Amino acid sequence: MKIGGKHTRSIWTVGEDAFGIFDQTRLPHELVTLTLHSAEDAARVIRSMQTRGAPLIGAVGAYGLALSVREDASDDAINQAVEMLAETRPTAINLKWALWRMRGALLNQPHGKRVALAWAEAQKIADEDVAMNEAIGFNGLKIIETIAEQKSGETVNILTHCNAGWLATVDYGTALAPIYMAHDAGIALHVWVDETRPRNQGAALTAFELGNHGVNHTIIADNAGGHYMQDGQVDMVIVGTDRVTANGDVANKIGTYLKALAAKDNNVPFYVALPSSTIDWTLQSGRDIPIEERSPDEVLKMSGRLQDGSVVTVDIAAPGSRAANPGFDVTPARLVTGLITERGTCAATPEGLRGLFPKD
Amino acid sequence: MKIGGKHTRSIWTVGEDAFGIFDQTRLPHELVTLTLHSAEDAARVIRSMQTRGAPLIGAVGAYGLALSVREDASDDAINQAVEMLAETRPTAINLKWALWRMRGALLNQPHGKRVALAWAEAQKIADEDVAMNEAIGFNGLKIIETIAEQKSGETVNILTHCNAGWLATVDYGTALAPIYMAHDAGIALHVWVDETRPRNQGAALTAFELGNHGVNHTIIADNAGGHYMQDGQVDMVIVGTDRVTANGDVANKIGTYLKALAAKDNNVPFYVALPSSTIDWTLQSGRDIPIEERSPDEVLKMSGRLQDGSVVTVDIAAPGSRAANPGFDVTPARLVTGLITERGTCAATPEGLRGLFPKD
Repeated sequence: MKIGGKHTRSIWTVGEDAFGIFDQTRLPHELVTLTLHSAEDAARVIRSMQTRGAPLIGAVGAYGLALSVREDASDDAINQAVEMLAETRPTAINLKWALWRMRGALLNQPHGKRVALAWAEAQKIADEDVAMNEAIGFNGLKIIETIAEQKSGETVNILTHCNAGWLATVDYGTALAPIYMAHDAGIALHVWVDETRPRNQGAALTAFELGNHGVNHTIIADNAGGHYMQDGQVDMVIVGTDRVTANGDVANKIGTYLKALAAKDNNVPFYVALPSSTIDWTLQSGRDIPIEERSPDEVLKMSGRLQDGSVVTVDIAAPGSRAANPGFDVTPARLVTGLITERGTCAATPEGLRGLFPKD
Repeated sequence: MKIGGKHTRSIWTVGEDAFGIFDQTRLPHELVTLTLHSAEDAARVIRSMQTRGAPLIGAVGAYGLALSVREDASDDAINQAVEMLAETRPTAINLKWALWRMRGALLNQPHGKRVALAWAEAQKIADEDVAMNEAIGFNGLKIIETIAEQKSGETVNILTHCNAGWLATVDYGTALAPIYMAHDAGIALHVWVDETRPRNQGAALTAFELGNHGVNHTIIADNAGGHYMQDGQVDMVIVGTDRVTANGDVANKIGTYLKALAAKDNNVPFYVALPSSTIDWTLQSGRDIPIEERSPDEVLKMSGRLQDGSVVTVDIAAPGSRAANPGFDVTPARLVTGLITERGTCAATPEGLRGLFPKD
């Protein structure tokens, strides 16, 4: 995607012993890049959410693991690094998928080759993510085209929650890839951007992305989406996901379930866009997905820009009150109209998923 | 209710030509009182939401009108003041109800008596609000007692949205009145407090109230309530309302509808607490309720305390992005378990409402 007219990925290599990312906790106020030199660096930025988005943290984990191999290429060290990195975020499955893939590519190989192999495998994971998101975008575009035709070219209103754009992936995004493709294809679009408390990924990141790409959008409080659906002002919902279980249940950013309920109640199609690495074939239902409990401070405090441009953090709640902060919820498959994957769109059912991915 | 151990109402008279309120935009950071001397003062603080809450702005409107009568007691002046005050908030019906009642009490009376009559009527409206909220609290308490018995004394978890507490009324609150009574009766309680973006009335006001009264509570992002209902951690929802139509549809703070959907999906009882002045018998359905569109700045900015205690407003969204800000949504009667009124609890149906209020 483009920033200031220049094509940019969300993760890039710096020589062969470091890689770079944007510090997403500084967005939308400042565009700051970070250069990471070790697996510990990678773990730290995943934990702090300076990098986030299920597909992107898979790539960050992969590069982090590749850097750990430069320090110690033994089986023990690789297993330890995989474990350390996997624990940084419990809900997203792509991170584990990427780490297990890296481990699989290394453990049976001669120690002397592991540094180069690890770097190459991480690059492959990143490149494949881009190709997958392009395919997701193309498959989602077909759905938007159909709605645009049904509306005879009137503006298509799409609601999204959190950020599943290029900042959440290596490039293009999952939920936003179809939107970018539709915009580039000249379809009249408008995106309702859920603010996505408590971390405001919608207002901070999705709005930043869409604005940079020139896509017409409006930020709304998370509370407002149901009202706009009742009012006929939402034609479809597209969100990303951190994990889809074998039955089609969808774990995604906290609040997704509420929008899925409202979509169902108002006959608004509700789509989830994902690369197949997000599917957890080992879990039969969303009830089994561990839900990350994050810091109460994310609810009790908020960061923003003062008029002089400086960024400060303020306390926003009643002093002395405590907060709870589950990071994700599970949307039952029955509320999902379809899963948009790199291989096409399928029903959120075991049969639907197995139809597209018979061998995974 | 008590602040710092001292019984306090949300509105009080200052001599016979002024009245006082708390500046709710300064809460929870500072407890600042405002003294109002005219109808224009009253209109200004309603518009700015320095005072808010459907029942309380009814009382503020009534006192404001009483002050306008001191300046000009003519029929024309009264009608103009009613109109000016009624336009300050379009969704809440109590404001109009209070103003029409004031007008009705004045127009057929001798001009010389109108100043005293108006002041007395405003006081009566305020006192009646307190009595009504006590009755609502008592009726809601019975429901909480039943749940506490079913749980054999285990903690009852109640979710509430926005602020329908004593800060939204003259005293006690509507949705929070049953909670205060249950707490005072020794029932083990815990309240999930929805933050209630964009104005954070939950985190700022409800948490402030509950904390001052010693009620166990936890602030959560608006996005989180559905997850806790799925997880069996919510035994009931109680909210207030700005207007109930003759069929039982409920207008309340934006986001209420989403919680009602989640409650329905998880068999959690969803109650709405209201004084009968909130019922709009002239509207047959919630579709007819005007929904106030508020300033985008409420979404794009946030106020909070810096570490030095000073209160600042910060920009929180991507620069250049626009926002939309509907203040209310409508929860269809089919999602409402019951309406808790001063006369008892009824079904959210025309028959239910008419059963309790046959002559209104």
